[in-house]
Amino acid sequence: MADYIYPITRLIECFRRLPGVGSKSAARMAFGVLEMPENEAEEFCAAIRSVKHDVGRCCVCCNLSDKDKCDICSDPGRDESVICVVEDARAVNALERAHEYTGTYHVLGGVISPMNGITPDKLNVKELIARLNGDVKEVIIATNPDIEGETTAVYLSKLIRPLGVKVTRLAYGVPVGADLEFADSETLARALEGRREF
Amino acid sequence: MADYIYPITRLIECFRRLPGVGSKSAARMAFGVLEMPENEAEEFCAAIRSVKHDVGRCCVCCNLSDKDKCDICSDPGRDESVICVVEDARAVNALERAHEYTGTYHVLGGVISPMNGITPDKLNVKELIARLNGDVKEVIIATNPDIEGETTAVYLSKLIRPLGVKVTRLAYGVPVGADLEFADSETLARALEGRREF
Repeated sequence: MADYIYPITRLIECFRRLPGVGSKSAARMAFGVLEMPENEAEEFCAAIRSVKHDVGRCCVCCNLSDKDKCDICSDPGRDESVICVVEDARAVNALERAHEYTGTYHVLGGVISPMNGITPDKLNVKELIARLNGDVKEVIIATNPDIEGETTAVYLSKLIRPLGVKVTRLAYGVPVGADLEFADSETLARALEGRREF
Repeated sequence: MADYIYPITRLIECFRRLPGVGSKSAARMAFGVLEMPENEAEEFCAAIRSVKHDVGRCCVCCNLSDKDKCDICSDPGRDESVICVVEDARAVNALERAHEYTGTYHVLGGVISPMNGITPDKLNVKELIARLNGDVKEVIIATNPDIEGETTAVYLSKLIRPLGVKVTRLAYGVPVGADLEFADSETLARALEGRREF
């Protein structure tokens, strides 16, 4: 009898299925649920159901949305002539937090990864191409700076450039506030390569 | 628009209410729910409801139980003449994992903590006293080795010893596998004090 009673074990198992959750944190969270007020637990269930039922994809940019067209695509203040291509909704959120970008987005829904069976046709690539209707002047590729993100960036640039649209890539370099001593050499090489005049 | 859409934000908030969950892990888990199959999400909701509705307290030891009397108290192989007093269900679980103890438990449901308004009458103390019916030979106090756990241990020992029951405390000492160099001096002092002959 070294296990918890079934209802608790079952909830621990549910938490363990979530990304980045080990057995100890799963147990701590299950006890958290046990101790929370009844109405908070009901709210939790309702919130889980809601993300499964109410969240779809924006018909323009493929970002997560609870409406047919997301808030960014519906915003007349956003510059529709620039599209920033990202892997997922979290990247959109990160870029929005920078309060710097005023164009629109396109969410690929992943990156090309033949090892995992993700080929370009599994991503929202044709939806992106369909948006390049002549009004779009620039596509900024903002996939993650890793091998798969790079592969996807190269693939997209080869696909888009022939359409007469400018294709750019987010700058590589040392992160603001970082210590050069701890930057990896690949990042430093890219930072030197991409250096700019004052 | 630096936030996620409402259904996601709401689920992130629910995860954040759980102990030890910060905003980044809450977001990661909310996206985990978004990406999990529909049936797993339903199972998750059912598991949350189940811990709220099916988990009660054992009528004997006050441990969490989905039956009137828990499995340990119902087990005829357990020695009912020894009661190990712990703070919560997690401590029972930890001791059971050690596969050393064959007596029964009593779960206090917390420790005395006047700062947080937890006085002895808020704990399952009278249920413990009611069990000391003459058949019980020893009460092992296994509250955590911190100030509140110690206070509770002293309080209980003063309450129980006059009833003619032997009261013991879990041994303090250096944890097995630890390095003496990194043991705190209080622990080392207790380990010296509690030294035993080979």
